[in-house]
Amino acid sequence: MKTTNIHAEILIQALPYIRRYYDKTVVVKYGGNAMIDENLKAAVMQDVLLMHYVGIHVVLVHGGGPEISAAMARMGKEPEFVGGLRVTDAETMEIVEMVLAGKTNKGIVAHLNRQGGRAVGLSGKDGSLIVAEKDTAQGDIGFVGRVTTINPGLIHTLIKDGYIPVISSVAIGADGESYNVNADTVAGELAAALGASKLIMMTDVEGIYRDFNDKDSLIAEMSTREAQSLITAGVADKGMIPKIGACITALQNGVERAHIIDGRVEHSLLIEMFTNEGIGTMVR
Amino acid sequence: MKTTNIHAEILIQALPYIRRYYDKTVVVKYGGNAMIDENLKAAVMQDVLLMHYVGIHVVLVHGGGPEISAAMARMGKEPEFVGGLRVTDAETMEIVEMVLAGKTNKGIVAHLNRQGGRAVGLSGKDGSLIVAEKDTAQGDIGFVGRVTTINPGLIHTLIKDGYIPVISSVAIGADGESYNVNADTVAGELAAALGASKLIMMTDVEGIYRDFNDKDSLIAEMSTREAQSLITAGVADKGMIPKIGACITALQNGVERAHIIDGRVEHSLLIEMFTNEGIGTMVR
Amino acid sequence: MKTTNIHAEILIQALPYIRRYYDKTVVVKYGGNAMIDENLKAAVMQDVLLMHYVGIHVVLVHGGGPEISAAMARMGKEPEFVGGLRVTDAETMEIVEMVLAGKTNKGIVAHLNRQGGRAVGLSGKDGSLIVAEKDTAQGDIGFVGRVTTINPGLIHTLIKDGYIPVISSVAIGADGESYNVNADTVAGELAAALGASKLIMMTDVEGIYRDFNDKDSLIAEMSTREAQSLITAGVADKGMIPKIGACITALQNGVERAHIIDGRVEHSLLIEMFTNEGIGTMVR
Amino acid sequence: MKTTNIHAEILIQALPYIRRYYDKTVVVKYGGNAMIDENLKAAVMQDVLLMHYVGIHVVLVHGGGPEISAAMARMGKEPEFVGGLRVTDAETMEIVEMVLAGKTNKGIVAHLNRQGGRAVGLSGKDGSLIVAEKDTAQGDIGFVGRVTTINPGLIHTLIKDGYIPVISSVAIGADGESYNVNADTVAGELAAALGASKLIMMTDVEGIYRDFNDKDSLIAEMSTREAQSLITAGVADKGMIPKIGACITALQNGVERAHIIDGRVEHSLLIEMFTNEGIGTMVR
Amino acid sequence: MKTTNIHAEILIQALPYIRRYYDKTVVVKYGGNAMIDENLKAAVMQDVLLMHYVGIHVVLVHGGGPEISAAMARMGKEPEFVGGLRVTDAETMEIVEMVLAGKTNKGIVAHLNRQGGRAVGLSGKDGSLIVAEKDTAQGDIGFVGRVTTINPGLIHTLIKDGYIPVISSVAIGADGESYNVNADTVAGELAAALGASKLIMMTDVEGIYRDFNDKDSLIAEMSTREAQSLITAGVADKGMIPKIGACITALQNGVERAHIIDGRVEHSLLIEMFTNEGIGTMVR
Amino acid sequence: MKTTNIHAEILIQALPYIRRYYDKTVVVKYGGNAMIDENLKAAVMQDVLLMHYVGIHVVLVHGGGPEISAAMARMGKEPEFVGGLRVTDAETMEIVEMVLAGKTNKGIVAHLNRQGGRAVGLSGKDGSLIVAEKDTAQGDIGFVGRVTTINPGLIHTLIKDGYIPVISSVAIGADGESYNVNADTVAGELAAALGASKLIMMTDVEGIYRDFNDKDSLIAEMSTREAQSLITAGVADKGMIPKIGACITALQNGVERAHIIDGRVEHSLLIEMFTNEGIGTMVR
Repeated sequence: MKTTNIHAEILIQALPYIRRYYDKTVVVKYGGNAMIDENLKAAVMQDVLLMHYVGIHVVLVHGGGPEISAAMARMGKEPEFVGGLRVTDAETMEIVEMVLAGKTNKGIVAHLNRQGGRAVGLSGKDGSLIVAEKDTAQGDIGFVGRVTTINPGLIHTLIKDGYIPVISSVAIGADGESYNVNADTVAGELAAALGASKLIMMTDVEGIYRDFNDKDSLIAEMSTREAQSLITAGVADKGMIPKIGACITALQNGVERAHIIDGRVEHSLLIEMFTNEGIGTMVR
Repeated sequence: MKTTNIHAEILIQALPYIRRYYDKTVVVKYGGNAMIDENLKAAVMQDVLLMHYVGIHVVLVHGGGPEISAAMARMGKEPEFVGGLRVTDAETMEIVEMVLAGKTNKGIVAHLNRQGGRAVGLSGKDGSLIVAEKDTAQGDIGFVGRVTTINPGLIHTLIKDGYIPVISSVAIGADGESYNVNADTVAGELAAALGASKLIMMTDVEGIYRDFNDKDSLIAEMSTREAQSLITAGVADKGMIPKIGACITALQNGVERAHIIDGRVEHSLLIEMFTNEGIGTMVR
Repeated sequence: MKTTNIHAEILIQALPYIRRYYDKTVVVKYGGNAMIDENLKAAVMQDVLLMHYVGIHVVLVHGGGPEISAAMARMGKEPEFVGGLRVTDAETMEIVEMVLAGKTNKGIVAHLNRQGGRAVGLSGKDGSLIVAEKDTAQGDIGFVGRVTTINPGLIHTLIKDGYIPVISSVAIGADGESYNVNADTVAGELAAALGASKLIMMTDVEGIYRDFNDKDSLIAEMSTREAQSLITAGVADKGMIPKIGACITALQNGVERAHIIDGRVEHSLLIEMFTNEGIGTMVR
Repeated sequence: MKTTNIHAEILIQALPYIRRYYDKTVVVKYGGNAMIDENLKAAVMQDVLLMHYVGIHVVLVHGGGPEISAAMARMGKEPEFVGGLRVTDAETMEIVEMVLAGKTNKGIVAHLNRQGGRAVGLSGKDGSLIVAEKDTAQGDIGFVGRVTTINPGLIHTLIKDGYIPVISSVAIGADGESYNVNADTVAGELAAALGASKLIMMTDVEGIYRDFNDKDSLIAEMSTREAQSLITAGVADKGMIPKIGACITALQNGVERAHIIDGRVEHSLLIEMFTNEGIGTMVR
Repeated sequence: MKTTNIHAEILIQALPYIRRYYDKTVVVKYGGNAMIDENLKAAVMQDVLLMHYVGIHVVLVHGGGPEISAAMARMGKEPEFVGGLRVTDAETMEIVEMVLAGKTNKGIVAHLNRQGGRAVGLSGKDGSLIVAEKDTAQGDIGFVGRVTTINPGLIHTLIKDGYIPVISSVAIGADGESYNVNADTVAGELAAALGASKLIMMTDVEGIYRDFNDKDSLIAEMSTREAQSLITAGVADKGMIPKIGACITALQNGVERAHIIDGRVEHSLLIEMFTNEGIGTMVR
Repeated sequence: MKTTNIHAEILIQALPYIRRYYDKTVVVKYGGNAMIDENLKAAVMQDVLLMHYVGIHVVLVHGGGPEISAAMARMGKEPEFVGGLRVTDAETMEIVEMVLAGKTNKGIVAHLNRQGGRAVGLSGKDGSLIVAEKDTAQGDIGFVGRVTTINPGLIHTLIKDGYIPVISSVAIGADGESYNVNADTVAGELAAALGASKLIMMTDVEGIYRDFNDKDSLIAEMSTREAQSLITAGVADKGMIPKIGACITALQNGVERAHIIDGRVEHSLLIEMFTNEGIGTMVR
């Protein structure tokens, strides 16, 4: 068979998936190695653009932990964590916001637009997109927020006119103050508020394991109920809890499918979206 | 490299082409072996659907010579040709129309719709889409027509609402009579009237040869002027003349590119649309 | 009184009917003598155009029994009927489809368009308009179908842009195969699916008789219940049963009025639509 | 032939005219006996409604001389005319406006709406529709105005939403003052500003005569140039001059045809619009 | 502080009110001294324009008692009242309509338009806006009507295109006859039918007093229930009853707030709309 | 006069200005003390909101020199200037972008949204709004850019849906790199590209002086030609040159008026927009 024919066959294999997600919204939580490794980064940008051009409304949500810590270090501040959450005093919050909304976010936007995309970077303050209040679950650890409301109007406006929204996980409080919110949670809430068809969480693991030490126990597919039980049973890894939680939030609000995929694999987004094999763990 | 990765790479290779033809109109003249061989036929249908789902407005034009001759034979009529044109008395015209508009056309429509497409079959009578007058270039050979006007309104209506128009080469005359018109010519005129971006002519040859006997002389790309000279110099094959003519008509009316491709190659449409290699002869 | 004044008075008489059906949909089942006699045919076309121009959305449904039998004869096939239904093997189905969708349908379209109409001919395959499954009520008699779904989207698209849909009674099956379906039934189902205001069945009788042998027993108006009882009581003529059934289907799905009219009367459509007298039998 | 058939034939005769004026604007100057005689009045209302329901955008312009004089008499004021124009002091202007905009206009509106129309009465003040300045051609005769600007926006708004505008010949001046303007002139200016297809002037004569004393010299059709020469040659009757002038204004601004018809004939509007005979004098 | 700064501060004070009523509908009943005193009149026009320009959809309703009586006097007719209602024979009704719809209404329209507004004057006949039947509560006192239906379509059409509707209190009956209806009642019914946010009744008193003789008993704010009890307890002044009734009608149909304000105060509308103090009595 | 009346009078004074700028675009360059002093800042936010609510499309452009220098100091970098331009190495550019797009911009957005606005913060990267190339006028001083293209599509999208765009002066280069561009210049270019009606430059001086040392020589109004001559004659202060240049750019591209106002005066924006006095220097 000639290569061109192989190419054609592969495009044809993607057809049912393109058909299914045409004119649908897919929220992608971008994070981990895929935000650090230059090759992975470039591949994600291509994947997002391809999804955009085949008629999928992609909404990209990102955090940016490592860059924040680096910036803090440069300013002589020591990161401090309580229960996995960054202790965020006013000065830290300012750095968080500058890095997420001013550097990481605009970097992604520039990368997409250089390749012909029409990306627009937003923080939760723009159009009061993400409203939060102080999260006191771990005591007072500063400007760490809990999402209370999503105002998706601005996203609808941008999607309707063909833009790709790229959203950093900074929220606005009732008095206009900034909150550092978990990007996984934001992705889940946004998928729910937008009535997305799919939520994809990019991680640095292959997916969810029934037994973390047994690499053969990777779960290909599970129900919301099973996902919930992994948390309550204490089986799920600490860092995985907000990701699983985001999937549950999304699914309980009408999102059809949520996926936890391995962002370390090049083009993992495309593989998940457009091939029979899929990748990682699907929650439905 | 894992297969899924190869798959992703190939999808990514298609990205620039998807981008370029997003929301653009492409007229495809469907004919030859690709209408007879069941595998080729199925591949064309998939190609058209993929183009449709990545946001290209495909308009399919078809003739149907062999099926017409078969039907005539069944009715005990002997086909007769003058200068390559079918002598078309009233009875023959009726058969032509029944076969093209009632059988071939609806067969294509059914094939596309079974796979999730939203195809609509039309003849030139619908919405007075193709208006013709008697063609007397070869003397009076009956209801053989020369296209005088294209009324593209109906096609715009259907495209706007996401339908795939499939058009048979039957035209309407000033008194409501039917004309048998050349499907290649119709494709060229439609591409011009619709302001299409591309015209693709499916044939049973590899493309245009500078010297038909030298298979190494295949022309990858040529200008309208060169195409014109192939006709005037008498180099072009008889059956190829209306195809080259259609390309010239289209290009002179603002269509960006016209292609003569080898319909005997599976997925030749996709290869032309979405790969770096392309296929056949391009006129620009 | 001068003739012009008489003319004006008659136009004025039509006013309340024009008002009532302005921007409403009326499904007309076209058939019988009105499809054969040239004068009647011309009158129907004028009636449809007048209805169109006074703001009524006319949808024309037709069958074409006699032309099918003629074509079969020409191809040396003997028509065969079981319980009033044509036994339809694959070859017959091909002829049925060619005649209905390729000849009869396009002939009506050409007739309307020659007089300034904007008709578009469709079969049930276009836009998957009429979906059917095999009808086994009389055993296996081939590709005779029972309507299962109407997808009216294409008709709405065409009506919105001012086209007159002309529909032949060919349906599409789950695997893309063709089915021969009863045109009366299609008219009733379409009227129901489109939310039409009126369904008009053109026949070759004056209307429904309470006693077929007593020409004075013509029913001017009856309820759905009475119509139903005519069928169950076995009073209704065999050929009339699907027509009465279509009226009942339409009325039970919100159509306001259904009429069985005498298509042998010139301009019977206009008389029904625009005069105080009306014509034939009305079911409400 | 049965009467119903005759009725149908007459409706069919109207078809080409309905087709030609579908979705077109026709300005009608309503006046003379047709505003006084109750039967004529009722017939005009029916004609306007029929035109409305067959898709013509009718704009009705009216004056109201006799009713004004009657109201003035009742208030003990003596009408006074200079050169055919009513001398209009402030008190007279108030009466003119009350009668035209408050009585005549609303009377027409009520008449149309009672029969299912959607008429809206306007004076030239509404939406600053008709702007005028003092007409000093006959010296200072008070609030007699000369139309300087038509602001047709409000009429377009109403037509788009399916209303029938009924307009009284009162204009607004630069300081908000009222002007009495000639209704014939207003009709011509409005037809021009609206890009109407037709202007119809209802009068109390059969049309324009080449020689007023020779009733056989009625002109069926003439050019703008001939119309102009009738005025300059002094042949045209005084009261006819503004009517002919309105026709010329309209035609010079793109209106296709202007008609001077005999409003004393019942349904003269319909006869002009929808029959082969037409009526009165056409200027083209 | 420099004057310009004071100016700015005052504009800023208006901001929350502008924000709250942006793109909302406010029905204003215009009447009393504010319609007679030239300064007050000019101030009302400015207030309405300012409201219009800051994005509020103002609908102005007016009566015109004094002008009607003056016109009747001029025509030698003696006004006669029964139970506060004007006995309205046919001749009186004609005068009422001429004055309200022809003089008062068009005067307000001209005043607004001279200052750049886009006002359109309507009576209840236009678009069958206000439908009434004979009010026989006081026996047969002629063409005095009771509102039965509001058809708000025309008002929505005008508002959508940026016009200011000015409405006189004349209604249309089932046979097209005119009815004299209470302007206060019309304002209340219109506010209800339009889904207005606010109803403002301009009067010649400071507001509602708990005890009319005690000027200190002015009620700043009360509930619908309290308003109702003022009527049933007989405390409310006769002329105030329809005003309070209009407020109750409006509030019971979803209008948020109704106000009875002192029209004798210059710019009372603006003070009510845009300052902290407010003015008069608010019913909620 | 009661205070409320004074208030009303002042609102009324603003009416003609509200009228003139209704549905028009006004670009405001926000900078200087008005960005530092908390009272001034709050007043600007109120002014912008008031403008927004009276129907003006405000587009806010800002730089942020002092905050950039502060952040650099904190990171131990010494600011360096050549010819008034900040030498911008890669690390500095990163800080510039983080401060402008991540801190200053989002701070303004949060301030507006807390008060009910619908602000959206953008940098020139979003939607490729501001495209620049390296500015080498002063030699290679790093990522200092010269605006080459404005893509205003995103701004139109946001304005149409009622958002207030807040834009930081960071541009995107051909390879996706960031450029530091002059905010004054950006404001001028944006006003030109958007077809704004007005450009307002907030400064820390009273306006333009004919002789900087003579405080009485403040220019109230001047032409583009005079503005140009101030630059060429070397009279204009260094920091004022880009501001004057922005005014000239805007005016030469169809903006009606440009203003250089004193941002140190509270509510200077409102004073300029809505009072007779105006403020600062107007270029027309």
